[in-house]
Amino acid sequence: MSGPNQPSGTRICDRCEALARCSEEPEALTRVFLSAEQRKADELTRAWMREAGMSARQDQIGNVVGRYEGAARHAPCLMLGSHLDTVRNAGKYDGMLGVVAAIECVSVLHGRGARFPFAIEVVGFADEEGVRFGAALIGSRAVAGTFDLGLLESRDAQGVSMREALVRYGLDPACVGNAARRKGDVLAYAELHIEQGPVLEAEGLPVGVVTAINGASRYTVDIDGLAGHAGTVPMKLRQDALAAAAECALAIESRCSREPDLVGTVGRIEAAPGATNVIPGFARFTIDVRAPHDEQRRAAAADIESTIASICCRRNVKVRVRQTHEGRTAVCAAWLQDQIGQAIAAQGLPVRRLPSGAGHDGMAMIDLVDIGMLFVRCAGGISHNPLEAISPGDAELAARVFLRFIENFRPAPGRR
Amino acid sequence: MSGPNQPSGTRICDRCEALARCSEEPEALTRVFLSAEQRKADELTRAWMREAGMSARQDQIGNVVGRYEGAARHAPCLMLGSHLDTVRNAGKYDGMLGVVAAIECVSVLHGRGARFPFAIEVVGFADEEGVRFGAALIGSRAVAGTFDLGLLESRDAQGVSMREALVRYGLDPACVGNAARRKGDVLAYAELHIEQGPVLEAEGLPVGVVTAINGASRYTVDIDGLAGHAGTVPMKLRQDALAAAAECALAIESRCSREPDLVGTVGRIEAAPGATNVIPGFARFTIDVRAPHDEQRRAAAADIESTIASICCRRNVKVRVRQTHEGRTAVCAAWLQDQIGQAIAAQGLPVRRLPSGAGHDGMAMIDLVDIGMLFVRCAGGISHNPLEAISPGDAELAARVFLRFIENFRPAPGRR
Repeated sequence: MSGPNQPSGTRICDRCEALARCSEEPEALTRVFLSAEQRKADELTRAWMREAGMSARQDQIGNVVGRYEGAARHAPCLMLGSHLDTVRNAGKYDGMLGVVAAIECVSVLHGRGARFPFAIEVVGFADEEGVRFGAALIGSRAVAGTFDLGLLESRDAQGVSMREALVRYGLDPACVGNAARRKGDVLAYAELHIEQGPVLEAEGLPVGVVTAINGASRYTVDIDGLAGHAGTVPMKLRQDALAAAAECALAIESRCSREPDLVGTVGRIEAAPGATNVIPGFARFTIDVRAPHDEQRRAAAADIESTIASICCRRNVKVRVRQTHEGRTAVCAAWLQDQIGQAIAAQGLPVRRLPSGAGHDGMAMIDLVDIGMLFVRCAGGISHNPLEAISPGDAELAARVFLRFIENFRPAPGRR
Repeated sequence: MSGPNQPSGTRICDRCEALARCSEEPEALTRVFLSAEQRKADELTRAWMREAGMSARQDQIGNVVGRYEGAARHAPCLMLGSHLDTVRNAGKYDGMLGVVAAIECVSVLHGRGARFPFAIEVVGFADEEGVRFGAALIGSRAVAGTFDLGLLESRDAQGVSMREALVRYGLDPACVGNAARRKGDVLAYAELHIEQGPVLEAEGLPVGVVTAINGASRYTVDIDGLAGHAGTVPMKLRQDALAAAAECALAIESRCSREPDLVGTVGRIEAAPGATNVIPGFARFTIDVRAPHDEQRRAAAADIESTIASICCRRNVKVRVRQTHEGRTAVCAAWLQDQIGQAIAAQGLPVRRLPSGAGHDGMAMIDLVDIGMLFVRCAGGISHNPLEAISPGDAELAARVFLRFIENFRPAPGRR
């Protein structure tokens, strides 16, 4: 038996730094699915798992899986985890923090010689971001048993198929299905993750309970007006596509500001022909709407579509709205929210519940088992960026909460 | 003595077609300053001038100048004209119509043997659009005596300087100053031109009197907000640069819609980083404001600048507004407006006065002499486009009006 008596924020942050050095670029952090850098990060992670008293293996999609046995062997597990891949030019905490913090918690339990009626597994998912092959949540979909085998034929920017990449990594594409877990073997999936937003920081709170991973609806809107000379066409005779797009953008902002937790974003816009002295005859923009409740999101999206139609009708311009994505909300189980909340309250902290606007492995894991998430404050809400930052104090506090949650974990009421 | 007794719309349109065949591209009309195509168009034009009873020459910047003597030789002239160069992929009437129609009028006068106390000159300016060297109004500035000799060193896309191009065209760059006319030699400058806007068509009128060539103020606006995750940043914590830009665009539209003849356009917009799922941290757009009165334009521009500042302050984003162009209004002389209006009324037509939102050679000629303009209806207000179109009937009617104006021309009251 060895290990600290309480989680160490310094060690958690040091290990995130160590993982960040497993990068394809010397000056920036980029680590994609089935890369040489993934192999380095996996080796580090498995070593930490073994040091924390776990068995450690790699599954058939490349996830790293550590297991800390329960009081009885072959007991179903509480599964903890997050992802080990990154976006390009990434921060050091998105994903990695959850893996490292979970190992830290197990290390403490191992140090104390604690055993529970359930096993604890820690998974470092091989791909959540989807950078290499375009499809996200590959690691967690394989574990949840929802991996689409057709994806094996998808190719990266160099033309390498996922099938070939798995073989080169030493995995057997024919065995990817073996990564799937049986429902009875996993009691719950819980993930610690940085918030990637500014809410906790704005409220001065180090941690929060996630209520849901928001669903998202995305659209591309094309507006056809009439191009014209910026000097010669009177305002009242114009069919200005960009002015129509601007009115739509403000209507989206206004509609989404009316309800808490609903968000709507126009992230891209273009106008053609795009000359200072020409009235735009065409405009295109994107919409991204998210909410913790599917009905809420769908109602907002419907309102937005109808407002856009009426703006464009009044302005005498043609509009086409195409939906490009529809992802349902993954609701965090109430019983897991409650247990995570109790662990926060035990640290004397207010229990702030908030939705996750960003996607997470729980969106795939929910097909296997109930999910719960603990959010950790991050600086300025900045993520997917080298400026992503957390404090060692917050990392330590979050790990203490997570440890408390594990120690007091009770399976879902119906499964007891 | 030969020639028709009245202007012919068919002949005018046929000649515009003939000029349109002098193009650097077989399928599109493009004819730039000092090109082989200009030489062909000039030769055609000079032949038509001579056929109409004029002497015809080329001046030292490459303008074509025809002169129909008055009752006495060396009398000061009424100068008519427009430009013979085009934009890329141009229409057939912008510029050319004014030169061809003026020649047609002189041809009729010549046919009748009419002589006046003043000479008539018709100028085909060699460059108004500024396509080749970036600087516009080169031909008319040379005639007005305001040509900037520094422009001789400017280079086209192939690296050829204007000085070299003049020499290759057979002109002497040292003599460009000789193209300038003395104030006493020119009584007025009058131009017939397609409207390039939809006002006359919308009101069912074939012609109109131009009140002023509108001045223009142009700006580039940069907004710095804070990029963020489209899913994680609540609406009330956002500093969305694009939403701010959209609000500014609508404010510009609204301010410019409050006054007749004032126009404001946002022609270009971009947002960065420009991803569907990222709140834009940066936005850039352009503003083009025009009005027939300088005070009106400046007041609108000042209002717009102050509204932008207050929108961006309220939204907590940084804004920089840079002025990229300021051109003053060229007011058409009241006495010329009146004489052109009388010529319209003599055809039994309503006298519609309207400003020109587009620029014209008159903007340069006003430094030499009072200017007047007659606008001709064009289809759909479309210009700078192969779809530019007029009807032969309108061309004929406009030439009749122009002819009447010439016949009844009386110099400015102070100069009689």
